[in-house]
Amino acid sequence: MKVNIYTSLLMALLLVPCSCKEQTPPEGETVSVETTSVDPLPSWNEGKTKEAIMAFVEGVTREGSPTFVPQADRIATFDNDGNLWSEQPFYFQLQFAIDRVRAMASDHPEWKDQQPFKALLEGDMQALMAEGEPGLIKLVMASHAGMTTADFDASVKDWLERARHPRFDQPYNTLVYQPMLELLDYLRDNGFTTFIVSGGGIDFMRPWTEEVYGIPPHQVVGSSIKAEFDYNAGSPVIRKLPELDFIDDKAGKPVGIHKFIGKKPIFASGNSDGDLQMLQYTASNPKGAFMLYLHHTDAEREWAYDRDSHIGRLDKGLDEAREKGWTVIDMKTDWKVVYPFQTVE
Amino acid sequence: MKVNIYTSLLMALLLVPCSCKEQTPPEGETVSVETTSVDPLPSWNEGKTKEAIMAFVEGVTREGSPTFVPQADRIATFDNDGNLWSEQPFYFQLQFAIDRVRAMASDHPEWKDQQPFKALLEGDMQALMAEGEPGLIKLVMASHAGMTTADFDASVKDWLERARHPRFDQPYNTLVYQPMLELLDYLRDNGFTTFIVSGGGIDFMRPWTEEVYGIPPHQVVGSSIKAEFDYNAGSPVIRKLPELDFIDDKAGKPVGIHKFIGKKPIFASGNSDGDLQMLQYTASNPKGAFMLYLHHTDAEREWAYDRDSHIGRLDKGLDEAREKGWTVIDMKTDWKVVYPFQTVE
Repeated sequence: MKVNIYTSLLMALLLVPCSCKEQTPPEGETVSVETTSVDPLPSWNEGKTKEAIMAFVEGVTREGSPTFVPQADRIATFDNDGNLWSEQPFYFQLQFAIDRVRAMASDHPEWKDQQPFKALLEGDMQALMAEGEPGLIKLVMASHAGMTTADFDASVKDWLERARHPRFDQPYNTLVYQPMLELLDYLRDNGFTTFIVSGGGIDFMRPWTEEVYGIPPHQVVGSSIKAEFDYNAGSPVIRKLPELDFIDDKAGKPVGIHKFIGKKPIFASGNSDGDLQMLQYTASNPKGAFMLYLHHTDAEREWAYDRDSHIGRLDKGLDEAREKGWTVIDMKTDWKVVYPFQTVE
Repeated sequence: MKVNIYTSLLMALLLVPCSCKEQTPPEGETVSVETTSVDPLPSWNEGKTKEAIMAFVEGVTREGSPTFVPQADRIATFDNDGNLWSEQPFYFQLQFAIDRVRAMASDHPEWKDQQPFKALLEGDMQALMAEGEPGLIKLVMASHAGMTTADFDASVKDWLERARHPRFDQPYNTLVYQPMLELLDYLRDNGFTTFIVSGGGIDFMRPWTEEVYGIPPHQVVGSSIKAEFDYNAGSPVIRKLPELDFIDDKAGKPVGIHKFIGKKPIFASGNSDGDLQMLQYTASNPKGAFMLYLHHTDAEREWAYDRDSHIGRLDKGLDEAREKGWTVIDMKTDWKVVYPFQTVE
């Protein structure tokens, strides 16, 4: 069983698209993908969701179409937690922070009496989770300030190699959604530039997003703590500081998009109320736009949660999507598979 | 005369490279540029500067070379003011801010007694220039807070169309360096991703860098003021706030590179002491790196200034470049032409 899973995983990872700038077509091969008959979204069931996505892309890319958008303006933004990878039983970055703090606890006896370390070390997950992504950022900030960015990067990679998800017993960054990998690839093949716009920590995502999603570090927008340059006697480093810089969540998402991307998206994809402002901002694009919500409806293959969830709550967003006719993915019925290791050959 | 200048300008602008993601090679055409015999840097005189640049690129791109760097890590960062376009008699953005404040002055009688508006309205340029790029940012902040980013963008474009440089009687964004346009293009043709990392305002650069430099907004790093999302009764906007967000100068440049790019460059290009930390940071790349300083030595075609200049001072940087063997462009001897409108056919 394990061998099969790992083989499928490897195959799936090999299929993960590279950064668009590397996608140089072989000599003599036609560039446009639209004309091929290969299904660009094989893990998506036929139906109105898939049709809506493909109709939008066709309208944006076809010269002469009334909804045509020049390639340079085809900006697509994706939330990460619960949208490109899972976020249950709690944000994966929270598990990373917990593991870091536990590993460091013996050097910090004072943490036993200090929040949020106390709750964390006592395993009071409810208290921790209630703080949401901003709370997570504070925890990361407290436990990682003083580290160089290179050391932090290495600690993320090390954790991804060692840690396993409690339910699936898989590395966390393999719990990414196969249909979304295909969607990212499909958009890039059609001249879109794909960005992550996440409430999660920017430095936590960047070490692996290029390999897993084909999204290079400079196309990742996230929350951050401040940093400073240290000349370090001729071996310069960037050192993380115990001060919040930016929370890329809710109304922070459009601000982050303006700050890091500098153009209004024509395609935005999220799964929670934390993405609502990003979708509203995108919807105001005079060039036209596509707003996509992922509704977690599949307790069997992934999780089912929406209005009452303490993580990734989708309540106001669901109402607004219905009211405004935005596209809502029903995970259970729209997706043939959820994770790459479930891919049927 | 005017007709000729505009014709050359138009031709030069047409030659300006597009964003790398648009550079899809025609069907059947070989992608690698290294093998062609066309000089990729025609406006550079033969000599050790040009040779050093081309030797570095060759070593980075040739498979099997001991200094080979994968395409995804070929990050090149360029300062803007005095490095991609001119910065004399003072930063062009300062002229933009002056023109904005003058146009708004009748609605703000209180500015007559308030600095920096007082100095500006009285034409006391020495006092204004002494504040450097951070001072400029403060001025922009004061005069533009409350504007939506869309209105600000439009005001920059409008200014570029109307304003003319006092010495050359040309639009400011045509005073870009032809040899640097070729260098940007040459690097992109060799798989580099090119970024601007400037002390200037990010929102002042982004409206025109894609057209002029082939650098899209999300590859522009600069100084900024804070902004907020305003739902605006269903027509969302981003509104600029009267609060500094980030000064991307000196030690701020490596921090900006980490924040926006997330990878250490292998190529960095600047012209002043404000770029020194960016070059030091780049020089520490274990993959190897190329550090390039532009020395303004050409009073006839552009300007000559270095250690004693109040703008773009190059003093410590010049010493460190000599000490560490970084490449220094001598504008007068290394460049055949400075501006595109001087291009010889």
